[in-house]
Amino acid sequence: MEGVDHLASERSRAQFDVEEMKVVWAGSRHALEVSDRISRLVASDPAFRKDNRTSLSRKELFKNTLRKTAHAWKRITELRLSEEEASRLRFYVDEPAFTDLHWGMFIPAIKGQGTEEQLQKWLPLAYKMQIIGCYAQTELGHGSNVQGLETTATFDPQTDEFIIHSPTLTSSKWWPGGLGKVSTHAVIYARLIIDGQDYGVNGFIVQLRSLDDHLPLPGITVGDIGMKFGSGAYNTMDNGVLRFDHVRIPRDQMLMRVSQVTREGKFVQSNVPRQLVYGTMVYVRQTIVADASCALSRAVCIATRYSAVRRQFGSQNGGVETQVIDYKTQQSRLFPLLASAYAFRFVGEWLKWLYTDVTQRLQANDFTTLPEAHACTAGLKSLTTSATADGIEECRKLCGGHGYLCSSGLPELFAVYVPACTYEGDNIVLLLQVARFLMKTVSQLGSGKKPVGTTAYMVRVEQLMQCRCAVQRAEDWLKPSVILEAFEARSARMSVACAQNLANFANPEEGFLELSADLTEAAVAHCQLIVVSKFIEKLKQDIPGKGVKEQLEILCNIYALFLLHKHLGDFLKTGCISPKQASLANDQLRSLYSQVRPNVITLVDAFNYTDHFLGSVLGRYDGNVYPKLYEEAWKDPLNDSVVPDGYQEYILPMLKQQLRNARL
Amino acid sequence: MEGVDHLASERSRAQFDVEEMKVVWAGSRHALEVSDRISRLVASDPAFRKDNRTSLSRKELFKNTLRKTAHAWKRITELRLSEEEASRLRFYVDEPAFTDLHWGMFIPAIKGQGTEEQLQKWLPLAYKMQIIGCYAQTELGHGSNVQGLETTATFDPQTDEFIIHSPTLTSSKWWPGGLGKVSTHAVIYARLIIDGQDYGVNGFIVQLRSLDDHLPLPGITVGDIGMKFGSGAYNTMDNGVLRFDHVRIPRDQMLMRVSQVTREGKFVQSNVPRQLVYGTMVYVRQTIVADASCALSRAVCIATRYSAVRRQFGSQNGGVETQVIDYKTQQSRLFPLLASAYAFRFVGEWLKWLYTDVTQRLQANDFTTLPEAHACTAGLKSLTTSATADGIEECRKLCGGHGYLCSSGLPELFAVYVPACTYEGDNIVLLLQVARFLMKTVSQLGSGKKPVGTTAYMVRVEQLMQCRCAVQRAEDWLKPSVILEAFEARSARMSVACAQNLANFANPEEGFLELSADLTEAAVAHCQLIVVSKFIEKLKQDIPGKGVKEQLEILCNIYALFLLHKHLGDFLKTGCISPKQASLANDQLRSLYSQVRPNVITLVDAFNYTDHFLGSVLGRYDGNVYPKLYEEAWKDPLNDSVVPDGYQEYILPMLKQQLRNARL
Ligand SMILES: Cc1cc2nc3c(=O)[nH]c(=O)nc-3n(C[C@H](O)[C@H](O)[C@H](O)COP(=O)(O)OP(=O)(O)OC[C@H]3O[C@@H](n4cnc5c(N)ncnc54)[C@H](O)[C@@H]3O)c2cc1C
Ligand SMILES: Cc1cc2nc3c(=O)[nH]c(=O)nc-3n(C[C@H](O)[C@H](O)[C@H](O)COP(=O)(O)OP(=O)(O)OC[C@H]3O[C@@H](n4cnc5c(N)ncnc54)[C@H](O)[C@@H]3O)c2cc1C
Ligand SMILES: [Ca+2]
Repeated sequence: MEGVDHLASERSRAQFDVEEMKVVWAGSRHALEVSDRISRLVASDPAFRKDNRTSLSRKELFKNTLRKTAHAWKRITELRLSEEEASRLRFYVDEPAFTDLHWGMFIPAIKGQGTEEQLQKWLPLAYKMQIIGCYAQTELGHGSNVQGLETTATFDPQTDEFIIHSPTLTSSKWWPGGLGKVSTHAVIYARLIIDGQDYGVNGFIVQLRSLDDHLPLPGITVGDIGMKFGSGAYNTMDNGVLRFDHVRIPRDQMLMRVSQVTREGKFVQSNVPRQLVYGTMVYVRQTIVADASCALSRAVCIATRYSAVRRQFGSQNGGVETQVIDYKTQQSRLFPLLASAYAFRFVGEWLKWLYTDVTQRLQANDFTTLPEAHACTAGLKSLTTSATADGIEECRKLCGGHGYLCSSGLPELFAVYVPACTYEGDNIVLLLQVARFLMKTVSQLGSGKKPVGTTAYMVRVEQLMQCRCAVQRAEDWLKPSVILEAFEARSARMSVACAQNLANFANPEEGFLELSADLTEAAVAHCQLIVVSKFIEKLKQDIPGKGVKEQLEILCNIYALFLLHKHLGDFLKTGCISPKQASLANDQLRSLYSQVRPNVITLVDAFNYTDHFLGSVLGRYDGNVYPKLYEEAWKDPLNDSVVPDGYQEYILPMLKQQLRNARL
Repeated sequence: MEGVDHLASERSRAQFDVEEMKVVWAGSRHALEVSDRISRLVASDPAFRKDNRTSLSRKELFKNTLRKTAHAWKRITELRLSEEEASRLRFYVDEPAFTDLHWGMFIPAIKGQGTEEQLQKWLPLAYKMQIIGCYAQTELGHGSNVQGLETTATFDPQTDEFIIHSPTLTSSKWWPGGLGKVSTHAVIYARLIIDGQDYGVNGFIVQLRSLDDHLPLPGITVGDIGMKFGSGAYNTMDNGVLRFDHVRIPRDQMLMRVSQVTREGKFVQSNVPRQLVYGTMVYVRQTIVADASCALSRAVCIATRYSAVRRQFGSQNGGVETQVIDYKTQQSRLFPLLASAYAFRFVGEWLKWLYTDVTQRLQANDFTTLPEAHACTAGLKSLTTSATADGIEECRKLCGGHGYLCSSGLPELFAVYVPACTYEGDNIVLLLQVARFLMKTVSQLGSGKKPVGTTAYMVRVEQLMQCRCAVQRAEDWLKPSVILEAFEARSARMSVACAQNLANFANPEEGFLELSADLTEAAVAHCQLIVVSKFIEKLKQDIPGKGVKEQLEILCNIYALFLLHKHLGDFLKTGCISPKQASLANDQLRSLYSQVRPNVITLVDAFNYTDHFLGSVLGRYDGNVYPKLYEEAWKDPLNDSVVPDGYQEYILPMLKQQLRNARL
């Protein structure tokens, strides 16, 4: 059976050019070439093998990750990889590690908040990994509320130093990745105190460990915060705890791009606008949305392939059984996730553009679009990570019992992924920010202030409050204009309804708190509209390749009509569509599932994931699932002996016991 | 801080008698007394400590579980515990183990399917644990479709034996808990073959391992199938793989209560009705629903207590911040889960009654209610396990970053719980069974055949198709009759709509497949109605204790109105309620959240869980979260040394490397 493609007949049914779809997914021919080359490089290197990861003890697991990161760094330097290639390589090694924070948070924080001199001093050291850094913001007592951080940085004019201190237990830094065991340095956030006055939270570069023997420097207590969700999973990361006992750092280690402290202890705001930090947030969140499409597509790839291999019921006269992917219940759970993966990919692509746009405007001192861009990225981060976390678990369930085995790859994918709903902004807290922005937008509609960017549709609010959906036949639901109008009307009406209800409160802040659950729903409606509209925009582009655009159109319609079905209450309550139109949408959705069915295996092939990266017996490219599941099982350490360790002490006496006392 | 109750002020606000609520939750004073006594016994015994479980390697973890089960058995026999007490003890030890299957599946299977002689021979051995058994049905290739199992049991008239054989790779038994390393015996399911003819799937008792040295008997290959979801979690269980190479067993080891094979090789159906197996299923599923309320209440208890301890934002002039439990978004996610836990508890209690009822009827040869009871338990199993799995993960997210730590107890709770959505019937496959029963019920409505039990409301279908909800003010939504009518109308209308759509298909079977996604939604609507109506019925009972009934009424309303909000599309689409009424329901729901708020800590205290059982730093009874989180962290094996193992080989060289080649 080795070498046979069990999914060949599925692949031969595809109605589009998979190679061209790969380009669309990757973003460009160049991106595809790099991804393809680097992922194969990683997959073919035995040092990067992923087996056994889930049955290792914490220490073994962690050491193994240190080995892999060292090897990755060796390959990156030996092969003289570009920054893009190096980052792809770390991605395909597929193991959370301190390097993620070093490259993804420590360096960007310095870049964003450091002065020219600070960049010149610190970046070369960091780029060459002569120092290893992490990002230490969260404390035991404060995460979401950054302004409530308790760590202090008190200026000592005598010595021209800051004294970094943890005044309470809850001020202990808690969670930073890479902090516990590896980082030599950290960007930490602390309240700046000068002469008894509190100037709020600022960033500082602090050395934590000696570069000679890796021991914590005097006054520093540092360690790992313990096991996290899952086996393997995020436990390869040393999320850490850190306490300062009056640790002194030179004044020039405060990140001073936006505010400075002078030699005399004067606090000075620079003329660099504070909004700059938003730019960095837009950047980080854009990468999170891109990661969401990766994680979701990975789970979908596994569940789709396995659903085509798995047969259950429906055999007539002893013939083969039905592939579970042919059951409509399976399709109605799986295909919307496939569509979501593509939808998130394209909205992520658009966010990349948005970041460039924002950056250019910032350089031109144009801050007009910044609040909108900020709200939009916050919302999309929340929407895509929540949907991805739920989607991965749904894919696991779609694989029946076998999805519960680590060899399916899905448990670990879930456990590694879920914190994305919490870090870089708790998803509910983010939705509340979006809602605040929406309420502001609505309240200003009368004032002549034009809504911009993704809220531009609000300018047509009067029309959207009244429009009636024109759908008469199921096929009408295929028109982008019809879909767009329904989603715009739903979102506008929900926002306006919230605004009206808020107006009933004497104290607007109290009203916001009281109605916050409704407000988050309005925010979700707005964000879903963004994703749908960016998918539709994408399809207006010229997309080459036989059948490629047609498949994407089907996926776009599936995504939209699936959301309409899921949130039907919103659409009906606000009168955007009628019950009859809802039922036509449902009919159309079923028909779209049948249309996409022959193409789904090839649509997941277009992600171009290697078997190494997928790390799933169920998701193997060749569909040779059963022999490989069987083979994997025997590798478990428990199978080292037929009779388990503990038999003599614990099982044998039970079997041989003569029960005199028992009542049983 | 040790010994201080940080939640005392919360507890003093409660408006009801917590001791009486404990009785309601436990089911009776007797049940509470037993639970309370046994849970304290377990909690106070150092041999049952649960710490470090998540950082152990697979082998250490498994051996530790063997130790605990042996100790539990020792205590059970020493203390001469009753069957009820013994089962409580295993429950509070809180670690999946082979004994779960021995007591929960092996023994019940023999009881249900064995003849009198077989019970007399096998049960005493099993009760004394002189043999250890498991339940081996599922194979690598077949789980849901039991009729497709491939293992064969061929009768050999020469020797009066069955030859048990695994003819293909996919016929390998796969998943049975306790099979891999511990069980000496199994009830296995195989196709009965006599004289070349296939008599379908039957059960057989097979010895797997020698009682002397625990080695697998000749012809038997057995092992563990490897790591599953989570660290710790279900990896304490030896789910196993098993292959037979022409293994012979005596004829009298076929379970012959329902069908027999005679000495001459004749296949005989006994006059015991086949429906008997439904009785066992009702029993097993009733325990699963009870387990759902336990698992969900546990997660809710943790998230509720922590939400009262955690403060974030909202500080005015440096005062204390807002408890996150006071945010309406937090309430709208958490309080419905609290209400669900109570709802599932009561529907589980009712299922216990249903099982007794079914058993009595079976004994009286009355099979009329059996199909309805079977559909109802299938649906409730599906509904409660899905809601519980999702609910646990929601509770974890409600705890922000700290919920991702194993010390929160929530990751392990989730990982252990989720397979309940898959085993004992995949939740979607079960909903399809419910849907089939509903369609049959609807189709027979005209025929004079009266719907029974939980489908009795269907008799009023004409009225339910037309009734109009009478709600005019938010308070109207508090009336049980109003709620009941809305849920009945929704369910009836969805079922009838499905039946009408099915009628458009020439081939009903094809129609069922095509519309199956809609059908599962109708099934869910029906099952939610059952839970709501059983909660309402419970409240008609006499419930003593100050304020107890009032709190339960609030919870019942929260449960119903939360479902109404979540599935608003169903209610609006079928015209059961108007958009205006929906909005009043929403207002009422918000007000209910405020009403229950002062009581929530005490409502979770009523579960009467020990800190040992909860296994969560965040859920501690005394709310002393931060010092204990900090303490826990340092116990991780990674903190054994300040400088991590691997520093010399992997970190130091990176820091000291002079990069000549790198492009960076
Ligand atoms: C795997 C992982 C890695 C991390 N890595 C880092 C790192 O490298 N560096 C770092 O500094 N930090 C890191 N963090 C910390 C992370 O950024 C925080 O956990 C996150 O910001 C959430 O904050 P919290 O934990 O305080 O949640 P909380 O704010 O305590 O949330 C608890 C609950 O309260 C609710 N809530 C809070 N405020 C409000 C409000 N105003 N209105 C309504 N509801 C509210 C939330 O919705 C949530 O349900 C990491 C966390 C994790 C899990
Ligand atoms: C932790 C755990 C413990 C277990 N313990 C035991 C044990 O002790 N003994 C034992 O014998 N077994 C045990 N099992 C096996 C368990 O009973 C099966 O996994 C379960 O019955 C589901 O079957 P499956 O895995 O074949 O799923 P599948 O049927 O393969 O499901 C895969 C997908 O196909 C879909 N599907 C299947 N049929 C249909 C249909 N007709 N229509 C629509 N969709 C369909 C499902 O909804 C699912 O999405 C255990 C499993 C687990 C995970
Ligand atoms: Ca582990």
